[in-house]
Order: sequence, then structure tokens, then C-alpha cells
Amino acid sequence: MVDIRDVAKHAGVSVSTVSNVLNGRIDQMRKETLKRIEESIKVLKYHPNKLAQQLKTGHVKMLGILVPSIMNPNFAALVNNIESIAKEKYGYQVLLANTSRQDKQEKLFLNDLLSFGVKGVIVVSSSIEKKHFINAINKGMVMVNYDGLTSEEAHNNKKILIDSISMDNFQAGKLAADFLLQQGCKNIVFATIKGNITSRNNKILGFLDSLKNAGLSTKNRIIEGTAQFAYGDSELAEIGKLLANEIIKNNKTLPDGIVAINDMLAIGIISELTRLGVKIPQDISVIGIDNMFLDTLFSPSLTSIASPLSDMATLMVDRLIAMLNGDKIEPREFLFKPYLVKRESVRY
Amino acid sequence: MVDIRDVAKHAGVSVSTVSNVLNGRIDQMRKETLKRIEESIKVLKYHPNKLAQQLKTGHVKMLGILVPSIMNPNFAALVNNIESIAKEKYGYQVLLANTSRQDKQEKLFLNDLLSFGVKGVIVVSSSIEKKHFINAINKGMVMVNYDGLTSEEAHNNKKILIDSISMDNFQAGKLAADFLLQQGCKNIVFATIKGNITSRNNKILGFLDSLKNAGLSTKNRIIEGTAQFAYGDSELAEIGKLLANEIIKNNKTLPDGIVAINDMLAIGIISELTRLGVKIPQDISVIGIDNMFLDTLFSPSLTSIASPLSDMATLMVDRLIAMLNGDKIEPREFLFKPYLVKRESVRY
Repeated sequence: MVDIRDVAKHAGVSVSTVSNVLNGRIDQMRKETLKRIEESIKVLKYHPNKLAQQLKTGHVKMLGILVPSIMNPNFAALVNNIESIAKEKYGYQVLLANTSRQDKQEKLFLNDLLSFGVKGVIVVSSSIEKKHFINAINKGMVMVNYDGLTSEEAHNNKKILIDSISMDNFQAGKLAADFLLQQGCKNIVFATIKGNITSRNNKILGFLDSLKNAGLSTKNRIIEGTAQFAYGDSELAEIGKLLANEIIKNNKTLPDGIVAINDMLAIGIISELTRLGVKIPQDISVIGIDNMFLDTLFSPSLTSIASPLSDMATLMVDRLIAMLNGDKIEPREFLFKPYLVKRESVRY
Repeated sequence: MVDIRDVAKHAGVSVSTVSNVLNGRIDQMRKETLKRIEESIKVLKYHPNKLAQQLKTGHVKMLGILVPSIMNPNFAALVNNIESIAKEKYGYQVLLANTSRQDKQEKLFLNDLLSFGVKGVIVVSSSIEKKHFINAINKGMVMVNYDGLTSEEAHNNKKILIDSISMDNFQAGKLAADFLLQQGCKNIVFATIKGNITSRNNKILGFLDSLKNAGLSTKNRIIEGTAQFAYGDSELAEIGKLLANEIIKNNKTLPDGIVAINDMLAIGIISELTRLGVKIPQDISVIGIDNMFLDTLFSPSLTSIASPLSDMATLMVDRLIAMLNGDKIEPREFLFKPYLVKRESVRY
């Protein structure tokens, strides 16, 4: 790679003279010298290295984004929002990593970011309290956590170490169940992928709270499917299909309503139930959580719980950049209110 | 940012002594000195900067990927494939840019890559022959173009400047039309988004070639929808819905078959036709091109033309890394053979 020293050598001047040209300090310079340097820059195809300059100042204009899988349309939408805000508002580019929720992949990416001089990262993970995240912070990384917040924590006064921005998942689970009950469902279940993830747990707690408030039993209400290794979030719909079969096989009485932990799972469930001859929503009402742009395209279109994704992405990028700029802001937790989007997959 | 000089100063040793520790050259070192340096590294939270080292060697282990929109599930699948191959096979991270097919966004990203010292990029664009791509190459960028190849060019002997890896789009368009005709369709149309893009043009030419071979008229067979500015590829399904309305309004006789330029457009068309009371596939057969993982989830599931995406992604990354390593490989064009995936949206 051509660097400033090569230009200086080619033009027969000192490095600081070339630097003066690059920084527009040419008032005192002889025209001949200027011309010779410009010629050398052109001949050698020298491109001033912004990154090398940024490394000196400790400020590389890149953000990392760590998601389980970009194949999940909901994470694609998140990355899309973050990327455009980072670029348009701040001139930052984004480094993307798919981790399949694997610790090893997460660690690898954090180490690479640090060694590239990238000091800011937005994280979607099963838990932000894992050791490798804490280690990265101790090495100077700043971090904003997406959708990893427990509602409980938000109400406690315990010391918060990492910025966290989430939809209120407890409310999302509750809102979904409340809506099914309002529409006359009496026997509802919650369909989820297995695994102890904060946002999942909170959705389940909200769902159960709704049942309790309605005076219904909370026993055996959760139906779990297991993700294959390396499948991660990209094969959620396949797990939904498996769950649909379990629901049919294992229940003498079919449920009349299903809350799916996310839209991709809901779509898989609906697709398979339909194939098995169950009518949606006449026989079973189904509601998802995410409100993907694809939801309008399925038949029936999917009723879902939405988060204000664009507002959340803006706040994440704003806070991360402020931290990178050294602003003294205390880590905080932000909960965004979910809302219901009615479509055709719930019986009226 | 802490650098190696700070560590040296803190430990009271020379920079080269610290460098020896970082590179494992400690045989000759006094234990005390080693301990003091390790202590300083810990206290100062020093993380050896791989990027600074890489900049010196001209080799930053990052690739750029430039796509119109990650919201298009087909580009999400592409990025997912590229990212995992780059990371697992070569230890490269990826910088992602959504460009909405806007020249301005493409230019901006290329300039940022160059100034970050990132010299390799995989490009999805309406045309690789635009000036800003050529300029970037002249500045030392190496590039692989995805899906921008004309079949004609592949058969000519003209000088190829940029590596190009594509599905054979002419064959894809032909294969889709051939299948509809084989299934008994007599009146088929091609639905597309407006705009002069190489891969689009080739699909259309293949479609028309199939009609000609079957002795059918090629007049008024192309139905075009216009993308809104900044919508890019993320709102393809919406354009599909508009096209469905046009097809209904502007035709005394409805077509009995539709080839959609891609699956998202097909899904939009099917969704809206169904809403308008047209039965798919009984009244109209619909076939898409892409074979998205979502295709199985729609009702009816979508028949589509597939490309060997994973093989294509592997070849792109392999060639790009070889070029970055300075291997003298001539730019070439690679065409991958598409194949038919039968599902429910075409009448048997």
C-alpha cells in the first residue's frame, strides 16, 4: 500500500511537506513543489488513509452490529435502520456479524472489533451479562444492548453497567394474550423456541400474567421447540412447523388461540396448521410479535405486536456515538411501549 | 487510545522490548522485565492494534459488501453466505452498505472503504460499468460483481475488467416461461420493476425467447411497475400489489400465467390477486425467481427458479481474497445454471 512516505520520496520532499499539502497548508509553498507533490499523489494512486489518521486519534468511524442472524427479517430490519442512521446522521459505517447466538462467534467478533480499533458495538444476544461482553467493556469497548432488558431490572435500582434499549417484552406478551382473550379465546397457549433468553422470558411472564388476571390456569401453557445447532434464528419457521404438529398430536382439545414468540415462528405454525387442515383464524387464532413488513403478505395476514423499531434504532445509535465521543452519560435502560397491529389471523 | 509507546513508557522500557513481548520473543528477557511489561499492559488496558499493523502491510482483513437493501430477503441470504464464508474460511469481517441502488450512496461507501484501507468489495448494483466503480479500481480496489453479467458478454471475447459472478439470468427467464407453457398456459406475461438493469434485461430476453420458440407473440408481454425513490428493493412486494391491480384493470382477458422478476414481487402479486378474488394457481399460475427460504411459507407456496447461492458466494469470496493476496488472476465471468423448484403456485 502506498503511504505518505512513498509520496514524499517520489516527489523528493519531506513527509511533513506532503502532510501540509494534504491538510491544505500551501500558502507558503512554492508552486513547483505543490505541483510535484500533486503529480506524485496521482502517479502513485495515493489515497490519504483516513483510518490511519483515525487510529492516532483513537476514533474509527465504524460501528459493530452483532445479531444472531441477518436471515431473520426482523434483524434485517434492525440492521437496516441502524445502518442508515449511523451513515446519514453521523457518517459511520457498520461492521456486521451473524453469531447464531454462539458465545464463540460473539467473542471472536468483539476481539476483531477491538483489534480493528472499533470501539462501539450494538449487541443482540441471549444475555449481555456474559463474561466476554464485560471483558470487552473493560478493554474500552462501549456497548448498547438491544432487546435484552428485563422489565424487573428496569424497576429496580440496581447498578446498570450497560446501556439497554428494548421493547417492553412483558407488556408485549401480555398485550398479545389480552387481545386473544378479548376476542373470546378460552384456551390459549404460548409457542416458543427453547432457551433461557431475557426477552423470551419476559414475553412468557407477560403472557402468564394475562392468564392469571383473567382467572385462567397457567399450567402447561408453554409449548417449546428446540433449535438445531447453527440453525439459530434463520430456521424459526421450520421450528414453527414442528410445533404445529406437536400442538395437533399432544392435545385432546385443540387450543383456540396461540401467541407465538415472534412472527417467523407464527408464520411457520400457520403454514403447517393450514396444511394439516386447521382453519386460521376460524379454528385457531394466531398472533405474533415483531410486526415484520412481510406480515401483510401472508394469507391470512398476520396480526402482531409491534415495537417502534426506527425510534429504538435512532436512540441506540445516538447513545453509542455520544459515548464514543466521550460524553459522560450514565448507562441507562430504556423500555419502548409495544402496540397491537390487527390483521386477519385472529378471529373477530 | 493507549498505544505501544504508552506501555513502553509506563514500564520504563523501549518500544522494541514491548514489541518483543507482544510477539512472543521473550527467551532472552529478564523475568522482572517481562512481568513489568505485562503489568503495564494490564493496567493501561492496552489491546495490540491489529489494524494499525495491517495498515502498514496494506492488508486490512475486512471486505465490503454493497447491496441495494438488506431488507430484501434474497440479499439478506447473500450477505449471510458471504459473511460466514469470509469469516470462517479467511478470518475476514464484513462492512455492509445498503445503497438503495443510488449512485451517491455507492460512491460514498467506496470512498469510505478506500479511506479505511479496505481494498476488497463485493458489489450488487444496477451496472458495474458506472464511473465510480472504475475510479475505485483505478485507486487499487479489487471488486467482484454479483449478478450483473450479461449472457451475451459471456459469449463475446471482449476484454473483461471486473470479476463477475451471476446466475444465468437469460436461462432463468426462459426456464420460468418454458415451465408455464409446458403446464398449459397460453397467455403469459412478465411482471417487473422498471429500470434498465443488466440482470433484469436478461431475464426479460430469456422470457421473450421462450415465447418466440413456442410460436407465440412477444408483443405487450412486459408489465412494469415503478419503484418509489428510496424504496429500492425493500418494497418490491408493494409494487407487486400495484401490478396485480394493473393486470386486472388493463386486460379484457386475464393472463393465465405470470413470471415475476423475483420472489418478493411474485408474493406481492399473489397476495393482491387473492384479495381481489383471483384463485392462484387455478385462475392464474405464478412463478418467481430467487427461491427465497420464505417461499415454502406462503399459501400457496411459491414455485420459483433457484440459483446455487452458496456456491456463488464461496466463489466470490475465494476470488476476492486471492486478488487481495496479490495473486495474478485475470478477471473472469462466471455463469451459474439456474434450476426449477416446483411448489404450489403453478397449476399442474
